[in-house]
Amino acid sequence: MINSDTIIALATPPGIGAISIIRISGKNAISVSEKLFFKKNKKKLSSHKSHTVHLGKIKNNENEIDEVLLTIFKTPHSYTGENTIEISCHGSIYIQQQIIDLYVQNGARVADPGEFTLRAFLNGKMDLNQAEAVADLISSENEGAHRLAIQQMKKEFSSDIKKLRKELLDFVSLIELELDFSEEDVEFADRNKFNSLIKKIKLELKLLIDSFKSGNVLKNGVSVAIVGKPNAGKSSLMNALAKDNKAIVSDIPGTTRDSIETSINIKGVKFRFIDTAGLRKTNDVIESKGIEKTREQISKANILIYLFDINDIDESEIKKTLSDFDREDLTVLLVRNKIDLKTKKTELLNNIRKMEIIEISALETSSVDLIKNKLISNINIINTHTNTVISNSRHLNALNNALNSLIDVETGIENNLSSDLLSIDIRKCIDSIGEITGEVTNDDILGNIFANFCIGK
Amino acid sequence: MINSDTIIALATPPGIGAISIIRISGKNAISVSEKLFFKKNKKKLSSHKSHTVHLGKIKNNENEIDEVLLTIFKTPHSYTGENTIEISCHGSIYIQQQIIDLYVQNGARVADPGEFTLRAFLNGKMDLNQAEAVADLISSENEGAHRLAIQQMKKEFSSDIKKLRKELLDFVSLIELELDFSEEDVEFADRNKFNSLIKKIKLELKLLIDSFKSGNVLKNGVSVAIVGKPNAGKSSLMNALAKDNKAIVSDIPGTTRDSIETSINIKGVKFRFIDTAGLRKTNDVIESKGIEKTREQISKANILIYLFDINDIDESEIKKTLSDFDREDLTVLLVRNKIDLKTKKTELLNNIRKMEIIEISALETSSVDLIKNKLISNINIINTHTNTVISNSRHLNALNNALNSLIDVETGIENNLSSDLLSIDIRKCIDSIGEITGEVTNDDILGNIFANFCIGK
Repeated sequence: MINSDTIIALATPPGIGAISIIRISGKNAISVSEKLFFKKNKKKLSSHKSHTVHLGKIKNNENEIDEVLLTIFKTPHSYTGENTIEISCHGSIYIQQQIIDLYVQNGARVADPGEFTLRAFLNGKMDLNQAEAVADLISSENEGAHRLAIQQMKKEFSSDIKKLRKELLDFVSLIELELDFSEEDVEFADRNKFNSLIKKIKLELKLLIDSFKSGNVLKNGVSVAIVGKPNAGKSSLMNALAKDNKAIVSDIPGTTRDSIETSINIKGVKFRFIDTAGLRKTNDVIESKGIEKTREQISKANILIYLFDINDIDESEIKKTLSDFDREDLTVLLVRNKIDLKTKKTELLNNIRKMEIIEISALETSSVDLIKNKLISNINIINTHTNTVISNSRHLNALNNALNSLIDVETGIENNLSSDLLSIDIRKCIDSIGEITGEVTNDDILGNIFANFCIGK
Repeated sequence: MINSDTIIALATPPGIGAISIIRISGKNAISVSEKLFFKKNKKKLSSHKSHTVHLGKIKNNENEIDEVLLTIFKTPHSYTGENTIEISCHGSIYIQQQIIDLYVQNGARVADPGEFTLRAFLNGKMDLNQAEAVADLISSENEGAHRLAIQQMKKEFSSDIKKLRKELLDFVSLIELELDFSEEDVEFADRNKFNSLIKKIKLELKLLIDSFKSGNVLKNGVSVAIVGKPNAGKSSLMNALAKDNKAIVSDIPGTTRDSIETSINIKGVKFRFIDTAGLRKTNDVIESKGIEKTREQISKANILIYLFDINDIDESEIKKTLSDFDREDLTVLLVRNKIDLKTKKTELLNNIRKMEIIEISALETSSVDLIKNKLISNINIINTHTNTVISNSRHLNALNNALNSLIDVETGIENNLSSDLLSIDIRKCIDSIGEITGEVTNDDILGNIFANFCIGK
């Protein structure tokens, strides 16, 4: 799978800017550059030290394409581990195209998405989960997702996973040794020790699996639905929350989201607010479909805020809505709005199950802060500084497979299964764990991972 | 005007990509980076050589923001001439913001548009016209505009202009010497020699002024209007022209264009096609306004293609349209379309002034090539490899002012004007020429030029 050809791609975001970076990696990255790059000092590029920058011109025969800065990274001291050249040119689309075309004419190939990082993985510069963390890091748009990606890129994350695998590997080799002496009926592997090892590893796998909930919240955000009668103040509350928050109101292309959401960062965590404006009774068929869609989204939300006007309380309506959407893993916040406009005695909502009622006036900063604090305190975030947190569903899947294999091993021991059969299940578990860091992999896994990278990474 | 503070900006296009570059320039660029950048090798950044690249981490206290490559450029060997740091970080918007915020907290200031290039100019790293060429280079989207910007960036362009100015300066100092000896009635400056110098410089100024037409065409493109009756095949012709041309169909934001145009590169020159679809008789008021706008655009076009169906020739209509738009500097191409569908004897169009009639079938490649060749051969492009071509209207304005001052000088000599009055007009001419390269400048000129740059350049 390792390619020895030389690849090229634009590494900076597409478009016009002051500077663009074009990255070239592979055996001939330096020698091809020597043909196309001209500087005053005639010393050959290959005779310069790694990590040095050179001013010169990229020329197509006599035609000057651009004055550029060229940086040399020599194998193995580069991102990919191969000889790498980075060209910093003027950020014109025409120049970017011309330089890439010129290298392609001279034998380079336009890189596939993620191909530089794939090479870094294949050349042992990083684990598979570190490679995945690179993509997460680039797409992280808030503190939580960013911290998670940084944590995942660290050696500690991989070494935790690798340690589990190593312990199982040590044990399975003892069990497999028994197979060589199968006629002598010896037990090199102490079954009691093994039992406690399995218990320990099961616990660690479960902790990692449980951490996914936190990881997923940090990576993809918490979904919040604000429901309530028209004029309860849903839009005002949304606007107030979004106000000084650099709110990202966006329809992110390429995601599978059904509707336009508003994302707001609160204390480094992304909250995705679902638009529930269309949630009301209707006889119109098309409108009904929209309502159905919104209901479906609310049924997947992490948090539901029921907002009502202090002067317009419809207790049976509240009760009905809450019971409509009630589920065990849904956090419900009951919020009484417009307390500044209170005109009559506050009703007690006796018929609603005992819940704290948050009182706000969406127009006041203190109310907005109150809601923010309530939102943050209702999500359970594992401390990513001290704990290993997974956020990748591929990792979750591998961990679940590993756990299931381990349960099979446990049952096997209970049933006095023979060493050869035990060994198969332990190997399954070891392979599943190995998939996370890429010690066990195949072209399909790699293809899936790197196809989602951006070009030039 | 020279600022000694340290400025920072994102230098790559905004958005998500594999890599982003953040540029920091100023007295404290290196010392601030020493506080924020941590690498394995403890050697201080300032003790490393210029043009070296270092791998390390940007940290906000204990929080790791990103693993980055940091390049050092030491004064005066940088773009701005100042100490400069370029940080190559992961292309996440969150990381970009965090790094910029961190530098700002440590005393850097977010750079104004073009401020890096302004500093390069103020520090004598480039002329004013070279600085302007940087902006042109970045926005160039075809071979012609690109070649022009590259030519304008070269020292030769400035030195041609500076040579003219030098010759006038030498002469005016002789004339001004006469003022010191005014009572002795001597003439240090030979009036005959001066006359021939003026003639020579006038000629050179005129050549430069004339070159603007070519330069402007290369930089901004040739505008072409395709007019004709409905169903003459205007859209088919447009589509055929645009087909294998990576056509840029765009409404470029920030330009003053009135309508959406289609730009097509033909042999490295940009042709901008005006949408004339709405050009027909109507009684509707709003539609009339649209038509008026289109007519106005056609009245500014460089080339008009009148397209008609070989089977639907309305000679009086053609005659009327052509006379409607006729002006001296408009190139008219008369194109007979659908020759493959010819059903009757071709009419001769006797009543139309003698013009070549181009016969095409818009569906055939050979016809499209024919039109392209006709378009190219009807524009007069000066060879930018051998001639100095101006493309900047600020330069055109300065050259016109210089020429007018020179004509005043000429008249003054004819009328035996005194040396002191002559000297004033020569100085005016010298100053106008000096504005081009920035030897004469003021804050207003600089402000206007750099305000149009992108951030980070």
